[in-house]
Amino acid sequence: MSLQDSKRVKTDDDAPYELIYWPQIPGRGECIRLVFEEAGVSYSDVAKNPDKAIPIVMGHISADNIGDAYNPPPLAPPILKHGDLLINQLPNILLYVAPRLGLAPKEGSGVYHLNEIVLTILDGLSNEVHDTHHPIAVSQYYEDQKEEAKKRAKNYTSERLPKFLAYMQRVLDAKTSGEGPWLYGDSLTYADLVLFQCLDGTKYAFPKSVEKLEQSGKYDGVFKLYQAVKERPNISKYLESERRAPYSEGVWRRYPELEED
Amino acid sequence: MSLQDSKRVKTDDDAPYELIYWPQIPGRGECIRLVFEEAGVSYSDVAKNPDKAIPIVMGHISADNIGDAYNPPPLAPPILKHGDLLINQLPNILLYVAPRLGLAPKEGSGVYHLNEIVLTILDGLSNEVHDTHHPIAVSQYYEDQKEEAKKRAKNYTSERLPKFLAYMQRVLDAKTSGEGPWLYGDSLTYADLVLFQCLDGTKYAFPKSVEKLEQSGKYDGVFKLYQAVKERPNISKYLESERRAPYSEGVWRRYPELEED
Repeated sequence: MSLQDSKRVKTDDDAPYELIYWPQIPGRGECIRLVFEEAGVSYSDVAKNPDKAIPIVMGHISADNIGDAYNPPPLAPPILKHGDLLINQLPNILLYVAPRLGLAPKEGSGVYHLNEIVLTILDGLSNEVHDTHHPIAVSQYYEDQKEEAKKRAKNYTSERLPKFLAYMQRVLDAKTSGEGPWLYGDSLTYADLVLFQCLDGTKYAFPKSVEKLEQSGKYDGVFKLYQAVKERPNISKYLESERRAPYSEGVWRRYPELEED
Repeated sequence: MSLQDSKRVKTDDDAPYELIYWPQIPGRGECIRLVFEEAGVSYSDVAKNPDKAIPIVMGHISADNIGDAYNPPPLAPPILKHGDLLINQLPNILLYVAPRLGLAPKEGSGVYHLNEIVLTILDGLSNEVHDTHHPIAVSQYYEDQKEEAKKRAKNYTSERLPKFLAYMQRVLDAKTSGEGPWLYGDSLTYADLVLFQCLDGTKYAFPKSVEKLEQSGKYDGVFKLYQAVKERPNISKYLESERRAPYSEGVWRRYPELEED
């Protein structure tokens, strides 16, 4: 297959969007759900059928899977299927979906500015939060790395979290953030949905730390954006629905001892 | 600024490419250098002038920087300036540059397949390698987190590194990897350059572990690709030039004790 031929894969925009993700947690899949929900687009979500979801995810990420005629194998969920196209890696799925649903520009510098903002939010409020409870090994229990987790969480809440909130506030203070509470331009983009979800998860994991930072008044724009997303009609309906899974053993977990001095 | 207006930023393809990165390490900037070198495109690289590079990087990432009329502020280097456009986040810079230099398709599914492969290589052979020597806090010395680093490195070399090499081998075994040693399609793409650089750095950090995995014969395609990139005329010339910085205190560091049992 040559680079030019890669266009032959059918990505019929009328094809249904199929999200493939672990059941029973919001997790990394949740940012994708929020994009579909905000846009009011129907999508299938196999996570809502746990008996089916686990074998389907396991099949995709199996050590024997070498993909199909159109797609390389995915390493890990979330996975998106759209027509013949199958892609993974959360920021990559968002990059694909958001411009198709009017939540990002289709071309120009906004594509890259939004992608960099989203990569940074995911680094700071998702990947680094995950590492607070698994600083040594993803494959080992939290209980077996609890002492290291306490050290990492202390560094996270005292240094990293304020650093990332301060950065998001600077993006909001930039000229590229126009009218309204949004990170980029004058209207809501997928970056705003990602910031909402990641801050919501981080509030769940570290409620005292986030509250203290909110009270400081230094990041008012960030918390105003959070509230503005929460009040979007489609998002608000979704958050109150049964489709929104409660937090549990995913990226964002609550271990109260990780917030103690 | 509306989403539509974002196109007004000038990204004149004749403008010079300006890489802004820390001096004296290959680091995350190196993947971008390899793209320019392979393409034979001239670029400026402020890292080659250490006295100038540090204040320039510090200015961009300063807590007071709120960007300019066209761009939000970057959080961290590498940063790319191209005409009026200024972007950060390594996978984002590669996504912007590679199709302009013929090292990725400009549209279609290949854009997203290459982006997901690159994100996964960077996760597994760059970010996770960094975390082996800094598992607790980026802001603290290695010496102050050495015990935790030993645990994390042991898990990395025994579980994570084989997992990522096995995944790259599966991408090479997929139908989407055509003729030749390349990850995607029939010709070299930026994903191949990223895999070369990240494996080269990981070999520097964990020479014994990588050698053992190479000897296993399970990842022959990955090591063949590594060699094929190394022998590309422009890459080979670059690697022998003074422009290629030696490894030292960057993402990929050699601490022999992290490979001991």
